[in-house]
Amino acid sequence: MDEFTLINKYFSKSKHDNSVYLGVGDDAALVKVDASQALAICVDTLVEGVHFPINTNPEDIAYKAVAVNLSDLAAMGAEPKWITLALTMPRVDADWLKNFSEGLYACCDAYHVSLIGGDTTRGPLSVTIQAHGFVPLEKSLKRSGAKVGDRIYVSGELGSAALGLQIISNKLTAPESEQKKLITALNRPEPCVKQGLLLRDFASSCIDISDGFLADLQHILDASHVGALIDLTKIPLSTALLDMQQRLQAALTGGDDYQLCFTIPAEKSAAFEQCFKAKGLAYFCVGEICKGTNIVFVNDNHYKINLSSLGYQHFGEKL
Amino acid sequence: MDEFTLINKYFSKSKHDNSVYLGVGDDAALVKVDASQALAICVDTLVEGVHFPINTNPEDIAYKAVAVNLSDLAAMGAEPKWITLALTMPRVDADWLKNFSEGLYACCDAYHVSLIGGDTTRGPLSVTIQAHGFVPLEKSLKRSGAKVGDRIYVSGELGSAALGLQIISNKLTAPESEQKKLITALNRPEPCVKQGLLLRDFASSCIDISDGFLADLQHILDASHVGALIDLTKIPLSTALLDMQQRLQAALTGGDDYQLCFTIPAEKSAAFEQCFKAKGLAYFCVGEICKGTNIVFVNDNHYKINLSSLGYQHFGEKL
Repeated sequence: MDEFTLINKYFSKSKHDNSVYLGVGDDAALVKVDASQALAICVDTLVEGVHFPINTNPEDIAYKAVAVNLSDLAAMGAEPKWITLALTMPRVDADWLKNFSEGLYACCDAYHVSLIGGDTTRGPLSVTIQAHGFVPLEKSLKRSGAKVGDRIYVSGELGSAALGLQIISNKLTAPESEQKKLITALNRPEPCVKQGLLLRDFASSCIDISDGFLADLQHILDASHVGALIDLTKIPLSTALLDMQQRLQAALTGGDDYQLCFTIPAEKSAAFEQCFKAKGLAYFCVGEICKGTNIVFVNDNHYKINLSSLGYQHFGEKL
Repeated sequence: MDEFTLINKYFSKSKHDNSVYLGVGDDAALVKVDASQALAICVDTLVEGVHFPINTNPEDIAYKAVAVNLSDLAAMGAEPKWITLALTMPRVDADWLKNFSEGLYACCDAYHVSLIGGDTTRGPLSVTIQAHGFVPLEKSLKRSGAKVGDRIYVSGELGSAALGLQIISNKLTAPESEQKKLITALNRPEPCVKQGLLLRDFASSCIDISDGFLADLQHILDASHVGALIDLTKIPLSTALLDMQQRLQAALTGGDDYQLCFTIPAEKSAAFEQCFKAKGLAYFCVGEICKGTNIVFVNDNHYKINLSSLGYQHFGEKL
């Protein structure tokens, strides 16, 4: 038995429901599908030194690798079901693998997902997860459904993960009480699976915020051929005790938040807000879809704001 | 539009059948599933410098990355349907990407598979493909079904890819007329999709030969709790003009052949051979499943052969 067969033992502990005929250990997994719904499939890779710093805790790497994929499914309104893992590692370290597999199963268990297959190879550290879930086709949330007049929402505060990255990169200091919270936001994102399922009944478009609010909102605008009016004073900033400009910059352009950004037709917005309120889920209305192709910023008095005049000289490059 | 959005344009040319509701370009792909069959899912990563040499032609890298996954599906008896691509690259090189995408689509088109989603990231070159296909559950080919008395077959000649690797690594010279053939076997494996589908009606177990014949046969033996008697004189060696020992060593322990190794109950073997013969497909009966847990080698006079006495001192390590 070679070391890679041993490694696979770390990943053979999945709790399967009866949809899994055959899990880890053969040439392919075999699963039972639900033909009354569409199967949603996504894939995301995290590379060491690019998507997480060298020497990140392996439990966090694994948790996040699963979470960011479940976030993609959530953005489609899909209920997650199975994942596969392609893990590339420079060497076989039993402790590292044990911790990694614990983080992976922690996220799987939290969202009722099972690991059904994978591949382990030798090379520079990188984790590719593919996630599968189901959504009734007519209720799936695409980027392309936003219409003029729809309200634009986000599901939670933005920018904490980007501030966390600045802290662990020693580019920012924050009060000690805040540091842990920001770093947790970076390392342990929680995908908005519950929100995605509820949004099936309300949203006209949806995306998860992985690249930054403005960049991801722009994907909705491009796919829907519309523009957006954003009230900067409504953006839910990180609650960290940092200055306003740092928090706003992180909220608008920082990646890795994994909140959802979505649009709701005006006539459904009251029912949507009532539904989320009843479930104790956060939501923030930050603007409205309008004609055009770009994002226009206003303050709460509807005065246009030129972001570059506020010192955001990098916005052009970022977008 | 950033460079990764541009990259994705290279991968938006898929020819979809009506099973694809939504392909590349949203948070997840949406596909139509067939609930009368099991969905087979597999994933395989190729890392530069590990699974293919640095500076391998990108068309070959892509073709092989798809082919090795289709080979896994073939080994389950599954009909391939969709793939996703997770591509990690150190830099964005338009020519490289163009060639890569051509190789990818060449293999997809040859086997009627469509690319439905993916992720492109920056980092050391590595290609992860995940493939999806369908097989009726009761006809799926697992590693675990081999029974004492079953015949052991392989679907084609073994060892050419390993000899090709030795040639491009300058560890072996072959007559010039042979070199191209061996290197093609390495770089452009053809998955045995057609064979896998036909084997649904005959095989009791199946695996694709990716790690080497002996290693992969051992996976069948382990999963089925049986042993094997292999007639070394029946192994279909590479037809390259090289000495017998080089060819036998490559056939037994060389990886990357992507032929199928499978077992057929004795009472079905005549019908199986007739079926493959009628379709013009190769097959080689190389032995028989027996009691035990290991592989025992014999010659065509049924004399036991001790491989280590023939100079195969590395077999212990390999297995």
